[in-house]
Amino acid sequence: MSTIQFNRITIIGLGHIGSSIARAIKQLHLANELVVTDGAAAIRARAAEIGLGDRVAQSNVEAVTDSDLVIICVPVGKLGQVAAEIAPHLKAGAIVSDVGSVKGPVTREMASHLPKTIHLVPGHPVAGTEDSGPDSGFAELFINRWCILTPLPDTDAAAVEKLATLWRTIGANVETMSPDHHDLVLAVTSHLPHLIAYTIVGTAEDMEKVTEAEVLKFSAGGFRDFTRIAASDPTMWRDIFLANKDAVLEMLGTFQEDLSKLTRAIRHGDGEALFDHFTRTRAIRRGIVNLGQDSSGANFGRPTERLPQDAKPATPAPSK
Amino acid sequence: MSTIQFNRITIIGLGHIGSSIARAIKQLHLANELVVTDGAAAIRARAAEIGLGDRVAQSNVEAVTDSDLVIICVPVGKLGQVAAEIAPHLKAGAIVSDVGSVKGPVTREMASHLPKTIHLVPGHPVAGTEDSGPDSGFAELFINRWCILTPLPDTDAAAVEKLATLWRTIGANVETMSPDHHDLVLAVTSHLPHLIAYTIVGTAEDMEKVTEAEVLKFSAGGFRDFTRIAASDPTMWRDIFLANKDAVLEMLGTFQEDLSKLTRAIRHGDGEALFDHFTRTRAIRRGIVNLGQDSSGANFGRPTERLPQDAKPATPAPSK
Repeated sequence: MSTIQFNRITIIGLGHIGSSIARAIKQLHLANELVVTDGAAAIRARAAEIGLGDRVAQSNVEAVTDSDLVIICVPVGKLGQVAAEIAPHLKAGAIVSDVGSVKGPVTREMASHLPKTIHLVPGHPVAGTEDSGPDSGFAELFINRWCILTPLPDTDAAAVEKLATLWRTIGANVETMSPDHHDLVLAVTSHLPHLIAYTIVGTAEDMEKVTEAEVLKFSAGGFRDFTRIAASDPTMWRDIFLANKDAVLEMLGTFQEDLSKLTRAIRHGDGEALFDHFTRTRAIRRGIVNLGQDSSGANFGRPTERLPQDAKPATPAPSK
Repeated sequence: MSTIQFNRITIIGLGHIGSSIARAIKQLHLANELVVTDGAAAIRARAAEIGLGDRVAQSNVEAVTDSDLVIICVPVGKLGQVAAEIAPHLKAGAIVSDVGSVKGPVTREMASHLPKTIHLVPGHPVAGTEDSGPDSGFAELFINRWCILTPLPDTDAAAVEKLATLWRTIGANVETMSPDHHDLVLAVTSHLPHLIAYTIVGTAEDMEKVTEAEVLKFSAGGFRDFTRIAASDPTMWRDIFLANKDAVLEMLGTFQEDLSKLTRAIRHGDGEALFDHFTRTRAIRRGIVNLGQDSSGANFGRPTERLPQDAKPATPAPSK
């Protein structure tokens, strides 16, 4: 039994997140008409091929005409520009949302472009994989993930609730908070981890005494865990660091202090300080698994292989 | 068809790695007798219960008597002590190995205790999960992982080859290198990543403006990837950082320089520098996946859930 929640929904931007939302809305029949579009002609063509929406519009203006809900899924650096472009063509009473990973400055910029008749309800689904593009999305991406909504204080509560219901229907848990608090929380849980991962993967590539081939071969010792998020979309992440500069720099300062403490413990051979720290961090992992925010399987539940049951060597010994 | 490779094999230390080796040797019948032991009486009792070896010895000395291959699987900080303890009781011509994550100083210490009649062939399987203890091991752990052997230049080549064949039989690829080069390689691919993960997980716990509950809830934005290796065994990792201090501090210096460069790019709003760096690190991930050292599935192949096919909301909207 399908439950139509909006007459017409528009998705602008058909990358990993936008195409996943489109798939979920279509699979669950949440709109009478789902209109999708993208700034790139090749992606619009691909969207038509794989049937991402009921209709592929050839421009943002065409896409938003008579739409009841517009979700803008473009990199953070382009949100203001798209809001300005569509503003004169939006239907009065429409809800406009986004999926950007930074909210404070971006929300304020979008709000400055939109007329008073529009309900701006910014959103951020804390979900995704390292993949990009319209083919990488999937309808199940948001199940048991959090979607944070950051409406301004004077936003219509009914509009917020309508959007929250949509997110819950496609599997997400919804929380609301202020745009600026969102940016601090995400600086810790997402932006700083990405920055560190990008750094360490770059460091490993540039070693003088250790070759890149060695780094790749022996990556199962821990390094490979960092490479997943350091393979995320470069445009998206450039925009995030530029937009959330202050919060990221603040968190980075704290990280640096903590790294100095552990470095000093290693330099001075202070085994007790190291042991205490390492014991404390174990508990955090348990908390995340208990909350259902990660797999309880060892190695993230990565698939394992099997030994031959006939007990022959897996690889014959070389004859050298 | 089983192929006996050694008459008697002894495993000392039945944690994650030791118990995995024992399981693989037993499953593939690589020894006429597999003798296992551990310093802790509770673990010896558990090993007997779950049948880790053909016989559980009550002491290291008893365990090594008449053994042809002894693999010591204890934390790096205890390797020297165990080598000293068993030295007078080893059979002439026996091979002694270990699985420690640091090789240079540790190999030299072990060598100083062992008589000339013994073949010391230090080893390090670059494999493991965040789990610890005898119940967490599994026979398939080493399949398609690398095992690094670090024999000294005068070590008997036939002994090295015998041990290499055993590792290949239980699924590993084998590479030999000098102990000191091993320590540099692992400082980059394993020790530095663990130190950074331990740091950032600690940082996130101690924030003033963001609660721990928020960190756990929104960890899917990237943070949760770090928590896996920051949940590793504290004793093992304390010993690694104390034993491989110089190489770790050297790599940390390079990491700090690279982090300063990215920090400066953020502070100055240098989007081009960020974009270039983020594009470069993407290629590294591809290299690791192509080498079979990580899952090609998005999100490490973590299991995904399904949306209801009947299109009802996954969670009913609250009535507030």
